[in-house]
Amino acid sequence: MATIDGDDLDLLDAWWRAANYLAVGQIYLRDNPLLREPLAAEHIKPRLLGHWGTTPGQTFLWAHVNRVARRGEFTPLFVSGPGHGGPAVVAATWLEGTYSERYAHVTPDEEGMRTLFRQFSSPGGIPSHVAPETPGSIHEGGELGYSLAHAYGAVFDNPDLLVACVVGDGEAETGPLATAWHANKFCHPVHDGTVLPVLHLNGYKIANPTVLARIPLDELRALMRGYGHEPYVVDAGLDEEHAAVHRRMADTMDEIVAEIARLRREASDAEAAGRPIERPRWPMLVLRTPKGWTGPREVDGVPVAGTYRAHQVPLAGTREDPEHRAELERWMRSYRPEELFDDAGRPRPELAALHPGGGRRMSATPHANGGELLRDLRLPDFRDHAVAVDRPGGPVAESTRVLGGWVREVMRRNPGNFRLFGPDEIASNRLQDVFAVTDRQFEGDILDGDDHLAPTGRAVEVLSEHLCQGWLEGYLLTGRHGLFTCYEAFIHIVDSMLNQHAKWLKVTRAIPWRRPVASLNYLLTSHVWRQDHNGFSHQDPGFIDHVVNKKAELVRVYLPPDANTLLSTADHCLRSRDYVNVIVAGKQPEPQWLDMESAVAHCTRGLGVWDWASTDRDGEPDVVLACAGDVPTLETLAAADLLRRHLPDLRVRVVNVVDLMRLEDPTEHPHGLPHREFDALFTPDKPVIFAYHGYPWLIHRLTYRRTGHANLHVRGYKEEGTTTTPFDMVMLNDLDRFHLVMDVIDRVPGLGVRHAALRQRMADERLACREYTRRHGEDRPDVRDWSWSGTGGETGASDTAPDLPAEVRTGPDQHDPLADVR
Amino acid sequence: MATIDGDDLDLLDAWWRAANYLAVGQIYLRDNPLLREPLAAEHIKPRLLGHWGTTPGQTFLWAHVNRVARRGEFTPLFVSGPGHGGPAVVAATWLEGTYSERYAHVTPDEEGMRTLFRQFSSPGGIPSHVAPETPGSIHEGGELGYSLAHAYGAVFDNPDLLVACVVGDGEAETGPLATAWHANKFCHPVHDGTVLPVLHLNGYKIANPTVLARIPLDELRALMRGYGHEPYVVDAGLDEEHAAVHRRMADTMDEIVAEIARLRREASDAEAAGRPIERPRWPMLVLRTPKGWTGPREVDGVPVAGTYRAHQVPLAGTREDPEHRAELERWMRSYRPEELFDDAGRPRPELAALHPGGGRRMSATPHANGGELLRDLRLPDFRDHAVAVDRPGGPVAESTRVLGGWVREVMRRNPGNFRLFGPDEIASNRLQDVFAVTDRQFEGDILDGDDHLAPTGRAVEVLSEHLCQGWLEGYLLTGRHGLFTCYEAFIHIVDSMLNQHAKWLKVTRAIPWRRPVASLNYLLTSHVWRQDHNGFSHQDPGFIDHVVNKKAELVRVYLPPDANTLLSTADHCLRSRDYVNVIVAGKQPEPQWLDMESAVAHCTRGLGVWDWASTDRDGEPDVVLACAGDVPTLETLAAADLLRRHLPDLRVRVVNVVDLMRLEDPTEHPHGLPHREFDALFTPDKPVIFAYHGYPWLIHRLTYRRTGHANLHVRGYKEEGTTTTPFDMVMLNDLDRFHLVMDVIDRVPGLGVRHAALRQRMADERLACREYTRRHGEDRPDVRDWSWSGTGGETGASDTAPDLPAEVRTGPDQHDPLADVR
Repeated sequence: MATIDGDDLDLLDAWWRAANYLAVGQIYLRDNPLLREPLAAEHIKPRLLGHWGTTPGQTFLWAHVNRVARRGEFTPLFVSGPGHGGPAVVAATWLEGTYSERYAHVTPDEEGMRTLFRQFSSPGGIPSHVAPETPGSIHEGGELGYSLAHAYGAVFDNPDLLVACVVGDGEAETGPLATAWHANKFCHPVHDGTVLPVLHLNGYKIANPTVLARIPLDELRALMRGYGHEPYVVDAGLDEEHAAVHRRMADTMDEIVAEIARLRREASDAEAAGRPIERPRWPMLVLRTPKGWTGPREVDGVPVAGTYRAHQVPLAGTREDPEHRAELERWMRSYRPEELFDDAGRPRPELAALHPGGGRRMSATPHANGGELLRDLRLPDFRDHAVAVDRPGGPVAESTRVLGGWVREVMRRNPGNFRLFGPDEIASNRLQDVFAVTDRQFEGDILDGDDHLAPTGRAVEVLSEHLCQGWLEGYLLTGRHGLFTCYEAFIHIVDSMLNQHAKWLKVTRAIPWRRPVASLNYLLTSHVWRQDHNGFSHQDPGFIDHVVNKKAELVRVYLPPDANTLLSTADHCLRSRDYVNVIVAGKQPEPQWLDMESAVAHCTRGLGVWDWASTDRDGEPDVVLACAGDVPTLETLAAADLLRRHLPDLRVRVVNVVDLMRLEDPTEHPHGLPHREFDALFTPDKPVIFAYHGYPWLIHRLTYRRTGHANLHVRGYKEEGTTTTPFDMVMLNDLDRFHLVMDVIDRVPGLGVRHAALRQRMADERLACREYTRRHGEDRPDVRDWSWSGTGGETGASDTAPDLPAEVRTGPDQHDPLADVR
Repeated sequence: MATIDGDDLDLLDAWWRAANYLAVGQIYLRDNPLLREPLAAEHIKPRLLGHWGTTPGQTFLWAHVNRVARRGEFTPLFVSGPGHGGPAVVAATWLEGTYSERYAHVTPDEEGMRTLFRQFSSPGGIPSHVAPETPGSIHEGGELGYSLAHAYGAVFDNPDLLVACVVGDGEAETGPLATAWHANKFCHPVHDGTVLPVLHLNGYKIANPTVLARIPLDELRALMRGYGHEPYVVDAGLDEEHAAVHRRMADTMDEIVAEIARLRREASDAEAAGRPIERPRWPMLVLRTPKGWTGPREVDGVPVAGTYRAHQVPLAGTREDPEHRAELERWMRSYRPEELFDDAGRPRPELAALHPGGGRRMSATPHANGGELLRDLRLPDFRDHAVAVDRPGGPVAESTRVLGGWVREVMRRNPGNFRLFGPDEIASNRLQDVFAVTDRQFEGDILDGDDHLAPTGRAVEVLSEHLCQGWLEGYLLTGRHGLFTCYEAFIHIVDSMLNQHAKWLKVTRAIPWRRPVASLNYLLTSHVWRQDHNGFSHQDPGFIDHVVNKKAELVRVYLPPDANTLLSTADHCLRSRDYVNVIVAGKQPEPQWLDMESAVAHCTRGLGVWDWASTDRDGEPDVVLACAGDVPTLETLAAADLLRRHLPDLRVRVVNVVDLMRLEDPTEHPHGLPHREFDALFTPDKPVIFAYHGYPWLIHRLTYRRTGHANLHVRGYKEEGTTTTPFDMVMLNDLDRFHLVMDVIDRVPGLGVRHAALRQRMADERLACREYTRRHGEDRPDVRDWSWSGTGGETGASDTAPDLPAEVRTGPDQHDPLADVR
């Protein structure tokens, strides 16, 4: 028995026709939107751009989701994987009235319809894909592959949400999408919402059929069952009456919604009764519709609808070719616009009754404008987790383990809107303290001996950086907070996803109704310098370079040198909005340099002189040793120590950089240090030996406009890696203390001649260290166990040198730093 | 009935024990390899590194593949996805004798065994993963996800090859691996080889269970059937007798091999009879073994074997802890080394009989050292495809379409060892001419109306950049040639794969037995400047930045400005070895600048003055207009044209750059232009306005050591994109002709004051152009249709200016370039 018939069916079909009409209009027309007169050349856009092929299937689905959503049993959200079909979603949102609410000039009438058509994929208008500009979307439709991950990110901790996630059959071939099917093993049937994946088989990509449309249906069903779903299939024939397809679709959607409700109820009952919850076999829908459905069947004697030729613009040259123009007019009139819009061009009122009201419209849901729902985190005081540093270099700690204690408290205080994502590396990256208050969420079988694995939990781990990134993006864009911890080298796996998210953020900043969302926070550890057994394949610091290519106003890169600076940095990042924050910090035991007060001051400045390590008491250094990153900082301080001992008269200034973007020209980045301050810090004319965590060129790129740039010598990673020991690794890249001393001797005028013997000794030390390592399989104990020998004293209050601006000077100068070494 | 028993079974088990013994030895021992005395602290490595967990499963599989391979029915190749288990493959290759053949100092005796143990994951030794150093491998085991794609790339056009591809259950969670299962729809059962995927379920990753090990077996079987495979399952219990597992495994392998042979024979018969070939349901094996199988069951009272704790080093602190040391000794002795190695430490001869001989050993197969099999391509003369350029800017052509004609001929002449890969973009990127000689290979259903889709073909398209890249890598590393064409923005999807391939190439250069392979060639088109309807999401020129972070000796980046330079560049790239070549070239109709002779000369130099566009006849320019990339070149020439007309006395030099790496310091890149030549070309002190295809900072980064760097002003992409028209797009990024003229006025001393009116006029032109675009939806015809108005004359022979070295000057100067404009 059909669940929809008569007027209801007619109306549903009318809504669908209206959406299709509006979609075609967007692709083709610049005027005459209601076809009040025969289509003339001047009504047609000069450049025809857009993707028709996927559009009618998506409007069809939107109509049918609205039909079931109107009952109010769940909160609907629509994610359009094949977002190239932007006209579909834009049309739906205009029909729902939201478009005109968000963009007052696109009125809900003929004039607005003309504007809607004109602006589409036109200069100064809107993109042809689903995009930040599109109300109701958390997903950009340009780069394919991330819809399912976004959908699952959205439903975490949103039990009422049902996301209808259209997966294009082209998109389904991508790796990120292929693995995202398994996200259903990380989605709780009571405490998280539900994703309804809709595999939209329209059969073709640009010029090829799709793989999933060309395997037998049995195989496809097996695949979906293998993913843990129960597949439902709705198949629309090109020649079939639309009413019949609507009926089947309505029946199927009713079945699906009822089944989802049943599964959720069962899980809920089980939980209430304290019974274990079995992972539900969630429904998914295979929706097979002809590509370019309802569009021209043939153009110039060649089949179009139902073939790859319907992918973009089925009728080309419409402005110039009267026959194509007539065909376009027939096509548009086939939707019977006179039945859909009133004389003023307004959608007829009965169409407006076909969607939920107000903020429950898929086009207007606050879940798709997460900033509306965003609540600040209740952040514990990171100072409570400080490592006590009585003197610089005194204590040794694993920075990320210390951070883990604070993140644990963040999770304790924010049980509903903060999550930690990682590709099986949370513990490896030393954040395991979080498991004192939460578990790893997993809906698969859980066995004795599993480590903090449970059906609910705030940590989500799967060995897919794509899925972690997609989940976090979906979680953030629906108004929550999170952190992604990853090995530094493998974060490149999501370079392209970062691109798209950064582009999304950039665009939303210019859209008044898009409210700021929490920043995308990366904690990159297990970094390039400490891949002792993983070796060369695990060494790549280039994500920083990738990120700084994005719009400067969006990106922040932090290289805290120890635990207290890491705590301060992380606190700052979790408070921020609309940024991409990259924190790189090591997990290995390392000396701690700053007490908490100094750390906060240092991080606030972003960079500064470490007085306690410097010997330029008169503020006139002979050389500046700059460093960014934990390992380079250690080697720089060890070099400073060597210089004190061997060249006690040399005036050395040590500058540490936490916030990398302070190096950039202030006209390029909002954090950029003013030139005057930069010069005061790095000097306009003295040699600067800069020990940097990543590829050395980045430092040159950031500083090429600085006065003293010609005097800057950067040591960093040179793609010279292997499986080796920590000190051997820095030697391999000439970033070690001995080489830094050699650099100083080479660069400071006059030293080379006078101190050739010392230079030779440094070179000999390197050879000896390498030889030791080769013989013993580990680093020479004296370099491995080296510790800072400066008196250090308190690391608290700072007294700035006279000629340095206060904001760039850090640390105490109550002691004579040379007293104990001379 | 068991297919293996008695002595055969004992021997097989002995081989397995030997491999496991050697694997444990690699992880732990630096001495006493045969346990001739009780293990003492000094026998143990100071740093215990490596991954035991996956190792015994892999040695088990290797042993059983050898058992069936010995019959000689196929050529075996082993791809170790969970290559973290490097000790497994290294042990097997030493047992097969290959290790000692490749590395003479690792002798096949006790001394060699000690070296083998010591070198593993030690400074100056070998990595802990399967790596380029490992004989028999085409796959690096560090970054997970690419094994299946590599395996399928290897079997293309290798009908005798059977690749046993171990997919780790951790790796199986990655996106690239998840989609690579579908590669079986692109593998011909007669003309390509066979991949036997072995899903190795050992149940755990670092700290988590794996998803596929925690779904019901029925669901897993459905998944594999959904991927198009027939799953076979071998399940080894932790407490089970090994003999029983060997028997089941041997039976299963016999069944699998027989089934593969049957399927291939059937396909072959069908082909011979002219019947259509049905896509075979290829076998795959689910091999479930306990993690850390045969290792310690419990350590310090905690279960280890069969849990995630067996992932890396099951016994920690073995050097210091006598109990752990004793446990290690018991563990190693449990393999009964005295039965496996003779008194000299040589593997007993009966073990050596367990593998195929010579180059058929999996450790010695030339397929895993592709350079041994590499044959040069038979390249057609690209000059035959030249666009006739009678005067610069005269003809208009789509560069990649022209290239397509040449690639077609490449494919025609090399039907067995060249393939073209693309994510459904071969036609979109205008290379469709290739379909005159070949088809797109696809083993799914093929329907009427499909466009050049066939079961065999040299073009392979799937909407997964990961799969395309993985296929091509596998194809290249087994000694063939190929080209990957991709939209520029989305090539970032494989950033991380490029990293790993570049690292592979870098390491192989230092390994004498690794012979050079064909370069990895990218053709990036549909580039950042021409995303008219795709907009912001499709704009990203950063892959170039990513690539130049790799070792300089490996990477080449080319930006040919027209069709003839593209042809010359592509020819060069297909001839090269061991490089990563990135070619960025547009597909839109664009003016053609150089005739073929000039194009070849220009590409050979990599960059040069375009005399015909320059007005510095005395070789003393007032300003240099430099450009790299097709769109920037067009705008630069249009700017030069404007300058001729409006500032006829200004001496302008136009420099075009094809080979980006020529800009770099010669000490950094082998293509780097010597400083003297750079200064001659760009001048040491004149303003250089550089119009660049990508992010402008890269030009600064490449040139920061150049004399005139302070005078360099770069215009490029600034992440300011939207859906717009071509000229509006360049205006949005200040790269347009008018802005370049404004830049010249601003930068050339004295011009600003004298030509304020002209500057204002240029600014007004920009506004007028934008206004026109907004009003009409397309670019103003005069800018859109602008063509070069210089006389141009021949574009052939070059007469260099007196003070420029010959190698940096291109083009004719037989005419007075100012004659017709003054």
